[in-house]
Amino acid sequence: MRSADVVVIGGSAAGIPAAVTARRHYPDKSILLIRREEKVLIPCGIPYIFGTVGSPEKNLIPDGVLEKNSIDLFVDEAKGLDPAKRVVTTAGGEEVGYDKLVLATGSEPLVPPIPGADLENVFVVKKEVPYLNQMLEVMKGVKDLVIIGGGFIGVEFADECKKGRDINVTVVEMLHHCLALAYDDDLCSQAEALLSEHGIDLMVDTKVEAIEGDGKVTGVRLADGKVLKADAVILGIGCKANTALAEAGGLEIGPTKGIKVDQHMRTSDEHIFACGDCAEKVSAFTGKPSPMKLASIASTEARIAGANLFSVHRENKGIIGVFATAFWNTTFGTAGLTQKEAEKNGFEVAIGSAEGPNRHPGGMPGMSPLKVKLVFNKNDGVLLGGQVAGADSGGELLNAISTFIQRKMTAEDIATFQLGTHPALTNSPIGYQLVNAAEIASMQMR
Amino acid sequence: MRSADVVVIGGSAAGIPAAVTARRHYPDKSILLIRREEKVLIPCGIPYIFGTVGSPEKNLIPDGVLEKNSIDLFVDEAKGLDPAKRVVTTAGGEEVGYDKLVLATGSEPLVPPIPGADLENVFVVKKEVPYLNQMLEVMKGVKDLVIIGGGFIGVEFADECKKGRDINVTVVEMLHHCLALAYDDDLCSQAEALLSEHGIDLMVDTKVEAIEGDGKVTGVRLADGKVLKADAVILGIGCKANTALAEAGGLEIGPTKGIKVDQHMRTSDEHIFACGDCAEKVSAFTGKPSPMKLASIASTEARIAGANLFSVHRENKGIIGVFATAFWNTTFGTAGLTQKEAEKNGFEVAIGSAEGPNRHPGGMPGMSPLKVKLVFNKNDGVLLGGQVAGADSGGELLNAISTFIQRKMTAEDIATFQLGTHPALTNSPIGYQLVNAAEIASMQMR
Repeated sequence: MRSADVVVIGGSAAGIPAAVTARRHYPDKSILLIRREEKVLIPCGIPYIFGTVGSPEKNLIPDGVLEKNSIDLFVDEAKGLDPAKRVVTTAGGEEVGYDKLVLATGSEPLVPPIPGADLENVFVVKKEVPYLNQMLEVMKGVKDLVIIGGGFIGVEFADECKKGRDINVTVVEMLHHCLALAYDDDLCSQAEALLSEHGIDLMVDTKVEAIEGDGKVTGVRLADGKVLKADAVILGIGCKANTALAEAGGLEIGPTKGIKVDQHMRTSDEHIFACGDCAEKVSAFTGKPSPMKLASIASTEARIAGANLFSVHRENKGIIGVFATAFWNTTFGTAGLTQKEAEKNGFEVAIGSAEGPNRHPGGMPGMSPLKVKLVFNKNDGVLLGGQVAGADSGGELLNAISTFIQRKMTAEDIATFQLGTHPALTNSPIGYQLVNAAEIASMQMR
Repeated sequence: MRSADVVVIGGSAAGIPAAVTARRHYPDKSILLIRREEKVLIPCGIPYIFGTVGSPEKNLIPDGVLEKNSIDLFVDEAKGLDPAKRVVTTAGGEEVGYDKLVLATGSEPLVPPIPGADLENVFVVKKEVPYLNQMLEVMKGVKDLVIIGGGFIGVEFADECKKGRDINVTVVEMLHHCLALAYDDDLCSQAEALLSEHGIDLMVDTKVEAIEGDGKVTGVRLADGKVLKADAVILGIGCKANTALAEAGGLEIGPTKGIKVDQHMRTSDEHIFACGDCAEKVSAFTGKPSPMKLASIASTEARIAGANLFSVHRENKGIIGVFATAFWNTTFGTAGLTQKEAEKNGFEVAIGSAEGPNRHPGGMPGMSPLKVKLVFNKNDGVLLGGQVAGADSGGELLNAISTFIQRKMTAEDIATFQLGTHPALTNSPIGYQLVNAAEIASMQMR
């Protein structure tokens, strides 16, 4: 029987950093990573396969990181788990013993409970190379593509599928805005305008009733009876934790259907940890369960789990949620709570917004505008969330905002934050968006 | 006699944010800004006038920010100060009364005490439009330019003057590396290689003995007797606080020759504040006086001074120093202490470095490498400094590092920091440089 001190199930944004962190913290332990995929896709890169990047093979996580860290690899699907014996069994009939087990089994795309979701050429976003290659092949002949769901995956697929194809792309979103869970209405409108400008048809406040077709999909029927022509449909409505292995082992499942974990990422079994999309999460702001699933959260949780395997080092303080998208040279990023989420959760807020160039003077090459919106708790001045829109430097500026939130910085702290600027890289120290947005918000708190 | 509740002397990176912050915190006060320049240059943009931007007129701070904030402007040079009467007198013979005064008088370029520094076509970097236009005019006929001083100003001038000109540019630096005060040796070497590749001649470990010429400059004589041919010389060896007005008013001067201030930016007179290059500074790491002068520090100090005028709100906790430069699509940034500075100050350090792409997968357009080096106090794990080299997203990533330092985050905190990533904007969550550098350093601390 195979065995290792540490066995990690899953080889993506949670499994790899869990194994690497275990290696760094426990240099003497043997570590085995089991995954079912021959090749592992970069999850956030999947939409870009359909335009910018061109093929799944160009969007892979290299195995070099495993070799470099002396992590053994075993490609097979873990199907059974016996926590009492500390043994995992695989689809290939192998038994693998462990001292500590990390479940990083990820998530699976949700399929809406509507008729026709099983028709040919109706796709979900699977993290599997052969499946995506088949999707790419089908896309060659598609004239009318309907995407159901206007979140990140939906709009990124819409935009990428439009690139280099003579194709009509329609996004159908149930809520009043695309990207409505990530941004407040002004940023959603800005993103929607940009997508419309580049030929994407957006239908918001729109519910899908059925997918129609005979064998193959031919259309999407909306709640008002209208039928959108479609020779392919992509379902981008979210995903659910993959808990099959955990359930096979009798582990507890949490309120959002993820594997229940404590603040050290330990499951209901003391030798088994879970991290990433398969694990239950709580919001750092409310302490409530959160269904949010992001590769970045997965990697942070993995770094906590991997360090804690044999001796507790690190604590999960709850997720804040930091994510971005970018299209047509415009970045949209968000960290923590939007204004509407904050208000929905009962916070009285103070808002500060500042817009300016990403260069100084404005005549420096590469100038584009960058807007920052900060959402503070009006009662104690602490930052609850931030949004950015514009220049691509907003992608890393978002990580400064994320730090502000994690360190519970107030508007006063941010207004006097010691910043670094340069003509070719940022706004000027006078105009710098973060400090000005904080100062504007702080004026509402005096 | 003119008068205002708040009078600010100086209209650049300290004066403007001091006035704007005063407006935001004290909406009912009258505010007058006095400056000697008709037009105000963006200080950090000055080197770019000589290449990328093209003229001083394209590198100005617009006066709109003053109008928008109801700040009156008076162009004249403040020459006299009577703290007892609370009156400033100007070169034009005006008297201006104040309730609170902010000195934001900036700095002046240092001239080395060597023969020939006063020859024609030997320039310092003055923040004056007519002077810079004259320099630009002279540069048209220059074949051999020698720049004395290989700090930020020196290398940025070297690179910009080379652009679009058929000209030999030599930088002479006394220390073993260019940019030696900002970076550790590996980053200095990387920057030097890039400059050399693009035709800049760098002479390090080289001392200048005299500037030669007859009326006009003809050469620069080095300590070894060698003479570099030169028909223009730029002195980029630093600057000194402009304290003339403060001294005229009898205010105390500090150990690095800046105006002495307390942690609230108040001078030795209770109604007078000072901020920016003219004010004395202390290091946040050592509490010792620091001669560092940066526009970003000026603006932060101004936001402290402006808020504290009538009621103390904000405290200056000492400077950490965050700054960057960029040439040939490569960003070099630094925050806090370098490894060598930290060691010189007696810290035992743990170092973590991580390099990777600024995109994921690497095939995303715009991919370039980005390296991060973090310097920790080995005894308590707290971050002392960070350096970045590579992609331009490093400019804002530096502001995340700056926050880490200001919030005294440890390697453990940073290793589990909740990051935001996107294929078109950053490395992957697995490879993200900041967390990996922190994790590598933390392995040395266990």
